[in-house]
Amino acid sequence: MHNEFELIARYFTPAPPAPEAGVTLGVGDDCTLLAPTPGHRLAVSVDTSVAGVHFPDAAPAEAIGHRALAVSLSDLAAMGARARWCLMALTLARADDAWLEGFSRGFRALCAATGTALVGGDVTRGATTIGVTVMGEVAPRAALTRGGARAGDLLAVTGALGGGAGGLALWQRGERDPAHPLLVRYLWPQPRLAAGEALLGLATAAIDISDGLLADLGHVLEASGAGAELELEALPLAEGLVAALGDEQARRAALGGGDDYELLLTLPAERLDEARRRLAALGLPLTVIGRITDTPGVVGAEDGVPGGWQHFQGQPDQGERP
Amino acid sequence: MHNEFELIARYFTPAPPAPEAGVTLGVGDDCTLLAPTPGHRLAVSVDTSVAGVHFPDAAPAEAIGHRALAVSLSDLAAMGARARWCLMALTLARADDAWLEGFSRGFRALCAATGTALVGGDVTRGATTIGVTVMGEVAPRAALTRGGARAGDLLAVTGALGGGAGGLALWQRGERDPAHPLLVRYLWPQPRLAAGEALLGLATAAIDISDGLLADLGHVLEASGAGAELELEALPLAEGLVAALGDEQARRAALGGGDDYELLLTLPAERLDEARRRLAALGLPLTVIGRITDTPGVVGAEDGVPGGWQHFQGQPDQGERP
Repeated sequence: MHNEFELIARYFTPAPPAPEAGVTLGVGDDCTLLAPTPGHRLAVSVDTSVAGVHFPDAAPAEAIGHRALAVSLSDLAAMGARARWCLMALTLARADDAWLEGFSRGFRALCAATGTALVGGDVTRGATTIGVTVMGEVAPRAALTRGGARAGDLLAVTGALGGGAGGLALWQRGERDPAHPLLVRYLWPQPRLAAGEALLGLATAAIDISDGLLADLGHVLEASGAGAELELEALPLAEGLVAALGDEQARRAALGGGDDYELLLTLPAERLDEARRRLAALGLPLTVIGRITDTPGVVGAEDGVPGGWQHFQGQPDQGERP
Repeated sequence: MHNEFELIARYFTPAPPAPEAGVTLGVGDDCTLLAPTPGHRLAVSVDTSVAGVHFPDAAPAEAIGHRALAVSLSDLAAMGARARWCLMALTLARADDAWLEGFSRGFRALCAATGTALVGGDVTRGATTIGVTVMGEVAPRAALTRGGARAGDLLAVTGALGGGAGGLALWQRGERDPAHPLLVRYLWPQPRLAAGEALLGLATAAIDISDGLLADLGHVLEASGAGAELELEALPLAEGLVAALGDEQARRAALGGGDDYELLLTLPAERLDEARRRLAALGLPLTVIGRITDTPGVVGAEDGVPGGWQHFQGQPDQGERP
């Protein structure tokens, strides 16, 4: 067993950050010192990933590292904030060099890909638990919140849905091909940071789909005091989802499964073309799946998904998910 | 079992923060939005407390809540930063209302006492683990780092030492009187935030004593490229420590025990009176316990503490502590 300080030194002491990272005193003192961009808001969020609860114990270490950061960065994406910094609280049952090497590689690669500097960490012994705090920046009054949806707005999603739940279902059936598109979706979620920034000034509300489409739509509707009509047939389903699960389970996965980390957003119809143009430049489709109404509730998913509806009615519990 | 959202809503949704808290969008969206003070540095740190590792499972819930925040705030104190915001990643084995109520009360009371706004959280199910990220502010080039100690500087500590280890030893012997001064020291550590701010411009280096005096002194000496002479007889021992542990164990606790969360600092002799005046106004003694030299290593603790020396030689491991 290595001690805490050796672990940190070996895997998590960042290289001296680039000047543009805004780190004026790096890791190694009691705190790290950062230089926020003048005139901006700081967007902050924390998410915890627990082994056996939020990801399978036996998932590839590299994917676990990627995923732990991705789910936190997804919250920045949903605000349209630019990712700047993160801190990691890593609790490990044991120090396994190969696992740590993979975990660190996955975590760092996503840091590099998103311009996020790792600026703090703590490594302790206990049941494997990863808490990641992320910090981003956004101009005042520009952030995409949950409360801005208005009757008449279109309801749209980036990318495709159901891949998270579909990938988990396949994993539980024993599928281990790392290139299977559904496993890729589940194990390597992509925080839609560039899409969130591109939607600033266009979207009226946004949220990332972590609990499931219906549950997260419910959060937007509650915050906005609005309702929605869904077009089930319009839902963009993840590649391979119907083939793997069949029609009905595929629709359930897309509506209620969660872990997709796509953005659900609302916007006036006249901004749709511009939004699609900007996202197309990022290689990301934007699909209209309904519209916002002023009648509370959701129309169009009644014969949908008991599990999904239960989520939507306020019973999501990350802790219940495998 | 309550679900994640009910838990957060009931215990951790803050009241709308005061305008001076700098929270422009409060908890309840994907991120919280903060307004950093223009021209300041942001000081950030994260610490994890694991049940059965960093605190006894059976410790009072209110003390656990206080302690989890205190150990993180102590890092801000050691930089001289003003506490502003915190985020909590709470993983719980089960949702026990009475425990949560106490935990939340202890956490919130320290937030209020230190002017720290709780601006984010995540509650998940798993082995009880509390990760607290803190964010504070300090003027550029003013922060107290570990690397500024110079030969000739005095070495000093705030408050008294050994209470953390002494309190833990008493707890393990079955002492449960919540008013016992050593249990108070162990269960309710006080982050020296006001002291840290008061020492800006006076101290040349500072660190909080979490791993033990010798270990933390080692961090300062390593960062400063210096050595130290310790005066063992000068160590200020916590109230009741010698009575509870005897002379030798009391000295071991003060040198190597950790969990005291006092500040260890260095400063030129001519600033000592001013530093003492400022800390006296906070009700806090400042005791000179040695001086900085240019000879690497520590003189004066040779016949001290095997455990302490082991700490000092680079083997501290929070995970090993009960």
